[in-house]
Amino acid sequence: MSDRVFNFSAGPGVLPEPVLRQAQQDLWNIHGSGIGILEHSHRGKVFDRVLAEAEADCREVGSIPDDYAVLFLPGGASSQFYMIPMNFCAADKSDTVDYFDTGEWSHKAIAEAKLFANVNVCGSSKATNYDHVPKGAEVKLSARPKYVYIESNSTVFGNQFKQLPAVPAGVPLISDSSSDIYSEPIDVRKYHFIYAGAQKNLGPASTVLVIARKDYLETGRADLPTMLQYRTHVKNQSRYNTPPTFGIYLVGQTFKWIKSIGGLKAMAERNRAKAAALYDHLDSQSFFTPLAKKEDRSPMNVVFKCPTPELDDLFVKQAEKHGLDGLKGHRSIGGMRASIYNAFPIEGVRALVEFMKTFEREHRGASKPAMAGAR
Amino acid sequence: MSDRVFNFSAGPGVLPEPVLRQAQQDLWNIHGSGIGILEHSHRGKVFDRVLAEAEADCREVGSIPDDYAVLFLPGGASSQFYMIPMNFCAADKSDTVDYFDTGEWSHKAIAEAKLFANVNVCGSSKATNYDHVPKGAEVKLSARPKYVYIESNSTVFGNQFKQLPAVPAGVPLISDSSSDIYSEPIDVRKYHFIYAGAQKNLGPASTVLVIARKDYLETGRADLPTMLQYRTHVKNQSRYNTPPTFGIYLVGQTFKWIKSIGGLKAMAERNRAKAAALYDHLDSQSFFTPLAKKEDRSPMNVVFKCPTPELDDLFVKQAEKHGLDGLKGHRSIGGMRASIYNAFPIEGVRALVEFMKTFEREHRGASKPAMAGAR
Repeated sequence: MSDRVFNFSAGPGVLPEPVLRQAQQDLWNIHGSGIGILEHSHRGKVFDRVLAEAEADCREVGSIPDDYAVLFLPGGASSQFYMIPMNFCAADKSDTVDYFDTGEWSHKAIAEAKLFANVNVCGSSKATNYDHVPKGAEVKLSARPKYVYIESNSTVFGNQFKQLPAVPAGVPLISDSSSDIYSEPIDVRKYHFIYAGAQKNLGPASTVLVIARKDYLETGRADLPTMLQYRTHVKNQSRYNTPPTFGIYLVGQTFKWIKSIGGLKAMAERNRAKAAALYDHLDSQSFFTPLAKKEDRSPMNVVFKCPTPELDDLFVKQAEKHGLDGLKGHRSIGGMRASIYNAFPIEGVRALVEFMKTFEREHRGASKPAMAGAR
Repeated sequence: MSDRVFNFSAGPGVLPEPVLRQAQQDLWNIHGSGIGILEHSHRGKVFDRVLAEAEADCREVGSIPDDYAVLFLPGGASSQFYMIPMNFCAADKSDTVDYFDTGEWSHKAIAEAKLFANVNVCGSSKATNYDHVPKGAEVKLSARPKYVYIESNSTVFGNQFKQLPAVPAGVPLISDSSSDIYSEPIDVRKYHFIYAGAQKNLGPASTVLVIARKDYLETGRADLPTMLQYRTHVKNQSRYNTPPTFGIYLVGQTFKWIKSIGGLKAMAERNRAKAAALYDHLDSQSFFTPLAKKEDRSPMNVVFKCPTPELDDLFVKQAEKHGLDGLKGHRSIGGMRASIYNAFPIEGVRALVEFMKTFEREHRGASKPAMAGAR
């Protein structure tokens, strides 16, 4: 019997167990160097190799073209909320940028962008609790946006862009892909700039992966503090200052793990199977109500509710006792959220479905809310 | 026989072995939660405890008064180079700030501060390869500096402020204490703001400890991006966004280790004994030349040279073969640097001294440079 539980946390979230086992060793002594990964100089030979492999494996897994930079930055995804507009908008704040408002994090990114530019919210599902991704007539791009910004997958509300918005030729598309990075194959060329906080699909909190066109990064403002200019990190290959060496190491190990299971195609198949098992059950019953509309459902974060908030609380508590941890929904929406990132095992999804069936049998008498999101 | 070597790296540097052993366990399953430390939500009960203990132990070890905030920030010490002037200098850049230029990192901090204020270099030892700390007539504070800034210990050149500069009443003193934080008891009240990158005496790279007067942090500019305002992190107790959870965990374990060996007084005694063993040997011979002047020598970073650069290279290479790793000096100065941080064992210093004696016997014929720093 394992001494680990099923961890549905939205992030920091579950990591691949082979990666953790390797990290346990390398914390003490990596590559036979007699020194642990935390203790190695970021300019020494051992870390040279760690960094080079992390970048090479990242490029291989994501099929990243050579004209794109791969950067490992500190500060968490929230630091990108301001770094992006700070770098790419004119100092006089005259630029207009288009943001899709599809969840908690794009909403926060919009607030930061307003310090640097005119923000046009070109599509929003806020009014319906972010239960979908704006499409068609809901989308109103501005005439000449400096860039278009999306949150590819809403960690909090469980929606996902299945198709990218149609962006005029030459307009940069920027994506916060924190909660679905490398969950499936990605066509990097459709974006100028992709970033992801590591703590969901990749590794430890506070390390950020940036995949972006080198020529675009060069267009950033040159009058900013050195650390806040992307070009600094391109020029110094993520080692201008002491980088998050352990984060880079661990993310690198995760790339190796993705390769070991067959790359992003195999990853996507696993993720589809997990999501299907959970959504199929949600669609087959009427006790639990899923939040996101069917066509925009996230394969990573599955958000649903019981008939009452009291039952939500009970569900979360009892689930925890059954070894199903971290199911409490985000404080802004309540209910339950099952985050089933890359490293989450299908056995955990099956266990959750079984638990849902049992819980429903015991509490079936309770009434169902009229519609998703309403209560 | 241990499978670990003596690690003289200047940072990331050696960590306490009991801390590493504990981290190996906790990476898999912390506090019997069935989830590893990397995988725990930053808002869950397990991390609540990790963070609360890290702060409480930090306060206990450093005798930090309640009116000082203890923050764990992302981004590395280099992020503080700009955050400090960005927060505390007026937006119109009219303020004057006083910086001591005593090494690589204060020099870089000065460059960033120039983006936000008039920088008065109020004392510099650059002309003599940073072989001392400016004192007396060398120091020229401006009439009304917004703050005075020091690098308490030069990681690269091996000097240290043994006495703090005399700062007019009411003028904030700010210290980058990255390479000597918690190496000895500290009188926090003498400072408005102390910060330290964790990767020398505390833990993993990219986490920063800030100890600062709460009222001072409140004076920072309020028109900056949310993440760049110190007040954000005070208000949210380092959890505005997902913080470097593993970094906080590990720094917390290091505070517990410091407590276990008797606190900062015991720590200082150990460090004095280590530094004395090395400096006493340097003073007893004439083959190796120490860089820093006697009265300003760092107990953390001991910088010295052989009679020729060729012998420096040979020394570093042969030392490595003898299990003495990371002795190469910083690229800006060359020679050797023995970083003997808190976690570095005295046995390693003794081994280095023995190796120095052997090396000298084998190469005694070589001539000695005329003076420290000159070649």
